[in-house]
Amino acid sequence: MRPPDSFNAFCSQSTAVLMGASAGALAGLSFAAKDLFDIVGHVTGAGNPDWLASHPPAAQTAPVVQKLVDAGATMVGKTHTDELSRGLFGENAHYGTPVNPKAPDCVPGGSSSGSAVAVASGAVNFALGTDTGGSVRVPASFCGLYGIRPTHGRLAFEGVVRQAASFDTIGWLATDAGVLARVAAVLIGFNADQAPRPTRLLVAQDAFALSEPATVKALTPAVERLRHLVGRVETQPFSKLPLSEWRDRQIALQSREAWVTFADWIDQTNPRLSFEVAAAFVRGMGVDDAALEAANRFRRERRAEIDELFPDATVVCLPTTPFPAPLRGQPRSSMASLRARILALTCIAGTLGCPQISLPVAELNGRPVGLSILAAPGSDAMLLALARAMASTL
Amino acid sequence: MRPPDSFNAFCSQSTAVLMGASAGALAGLSFAAKDLFDIVGHVTGAGNPDWLASHPPAAQTAPVVQKLVDAGATMVGKTHTDELSRGLFGENAHYGTPVNPKAPDCVPGGSSSGSAVAVASGAVNFALGTDTGGSVRVPASFCGLYGIRPTHGRLAFEGVVRQAASFDTIGWLATDAGVLARVAAVLIGFNADQAPRPTRLLVAQDAFALSEPATVKALTPAVERLRHLVGRVETQPFSKLPLSEWRDRQIALQSREAWVTFADWIDQTNPRLSFEVAAAFVRGMGVDDAALEAANRFRRERRAEIDELFPDATVVCLPTTPFPAPLRGQPRSSMASLRARILALTCIAGTLGCPQISLPVAELNGRPVGLSILAAPGSDAMLLALARAMASTL
Repeated sequence: MRPPDSFNAFCSQSTAVLMGASAGALAGLSFAAKDLFDIVGHVTGAGNPDWLASHPPAAQTAPVVQKLVDAGATMVGKTHTDELSRGLFGENAHYGTPVNPKAPDCVPGGSSSGSAVAVASGAVNFALGTDTGGSVRVPASFCGLYGIRPTHGRLAFEGVVRQAASFDTIGWLATDAGVLARVAAVLIGFNADQAPRPTRLLVAQDAFALSEPATVKALTPAVERLRHLVGRVETQPFSKLPLSEWRDRQIALQSREAWVTFADWIDQTNPRLSFEVAAAFVRGMGVDDAALEAANRFRRERRAEIDELFPDATVVCLPTTPFPAPLRGQPRSSMASLRARILALTCIAGTLGCPQISLPVAELNGRPVGLSILAAPGSDAMLLALARAMASTL
Repeated sequence: MRPPDSFNAFCSQSTAVLMGASAGALAGLSFAAKDLFDIVGHVTGAGNPDWLASHPPAAQTAPVVQKLVDAGATMVGKTHTDELSRGLFGENAHYGTPVNPKAPDCVPGGSSSGSAVAVASGAVNFALGTDTGGSVRVPASFCGLYGIRPTHGRLAFEGVVRQAASFDTIGWLATDAGVLARVAAVLIGFNADQAPRPTRLLVAQDAFALSEPATVKALTPAVERLRHLVGRVETQPFSKLPLSEWRDRQIALQSREAWVTFADWIDQTNPRLSFEVAAAFVRGMGVDDAALEAANRFRRERRAEIDELFPDATVVCLPTTPFPAPLRGQPRSSMASLRARILALTCIAGTLGCPQISLPVAELNGRPVGLSILAAPGSDAMLLALARAMASTL
């Protein structure tokens, strides 16, 4: 049942498979689920061997997986994740780095690394991931896939290993915009005929300014296509405040929440973690109440400006990542600075709870890089319809 | 050659063995070496699988090991260490916890855990360890052994994996005070006939006050024997300053030095570490220059007082640890507070560079606990002679 896996996308320690219902909206499609999703009778591994060893088999299948199976899709396996979903590159110290089929010398992106690779390698039609700080969008960009982070809270985060509750979302990846939308129809009720159309495109000047010039250049033709589709276009900064400040506030909130999520388990288990992940937890532990309150206030203020940030039916476009996938196996110090640059782009959706879709519209020296569309919370259908319209302009 | 090992003292991944010379001061004795000591042709593992995997076999045997072999002792194996020598309990997340032969439900102490267990189980006559913050003295106390931390710098720390250079020492453990001294004779030139005699015993009131009452009570008969041996006795605080301040300054210095020691390797390798050890590195990274300078100043001031702290030929006695070995497998939070209490006693020798010997003189509900004797830097011979004299009073 499990497809051949020369790309190390799938968890060899789990044999979870769920046959799809014989009929339904997704009949005939196959999918994979990141190893954060519970499958009844199997231990959810979360990318860490001590997590795997210290948890019992799941008593229930995560509702989102069950919905897909009930709609006819077959789950063929669980996929590698960055350790405890903490990472953006897909380099797992315990289970290895899944191979990016589009750029084998480069990281696949993470933390939904195995899900992205399973889709990009053609092993499945789509795959479930999670996105807390960018974990669906980044691998979508690096592997040349469609990837959606829905509005925060739109899908119940149930039967899934949490990281930071106020940012955690369930998302999915596909090579085909139609499949992306069909999954959305099952999970969040998307109907193309009823989807609102955007009336204004904002090209986020501040986000493009934080991206590498070659990446901006590679994305330009796709931005042009978006301009034509939407009609009314403005090029200006998305925020009056530097996106680096958005990022730093999200890092404070997310890392503190992640520490709280895992603190008891860490205390009981003293687990083996890669240094990078352990350091992130220690930093979260060190976010004091004053920093936390300042970051919370910042987020409340930004959310209070949502109507102002998205007047009419605004769609914002920005690079999903400021560059294509970096090389695998670089030192921590190099990767840390790259991660900070990515987070300055991905933090917008995290901070506001916005939906965002990464579109596989460009390549740079053979390495994919995504263009994202993002809109106000609740605008998932508008983005899905726009993603399909973009696909049809190719 | 390797003795049977039902106590998990020895590293199964290393087969290093060195036959002793046919004659010499240690002929017929067997010993083990903590897996921080280089043995030619073998990779030194340092208690971490990623260290093992990222280092080549040693080109030379550590001089201290070679000296012992040249003196006739046979090295029968390498022993487990706390990960990268960072720990006081002997609980290694990667290789398991060596079993304390005297108290199997309790930790053996660390970081020279396997060396202590190899000796306490009778597998070898003595074993080499290292002591940076207490790593020979603590397992000596918990396993009921003699254990010496010599004067800092007395033995060159060569061919041994460093932790924090200004605290690192090479020490050894034995069940027999005579063997302890014979090894000293080979390594640092001890001659019992020329050893000075202490003229004053200071019972360190502040150190006893930090120990559990039942432990203090259990140690009392041994303190009495020491009183008789030395003659002149005073009971007063060792320091005018709280020992917790000595400890906190040593933690700042040691953890920062340890970070510097391992930073490049961590950057290149992003190793898997237990959370506890990773957190210690992150804390070391966070010791800023001001805290470092304050801690250095504190240490300089204390070292300037050495003549005042050890008038005449003073020997200080104090509990090696404030309690016998705690239970194995407790949560991090419990162990962290126990560790802090131990360090308030072990930091004296670390801060001053003093020699210290733990004597196996007491038990509490079947669990060993050691009494320590400590003197001014350079007084190793005086302490070794006193340890032998104490043994002869039994």
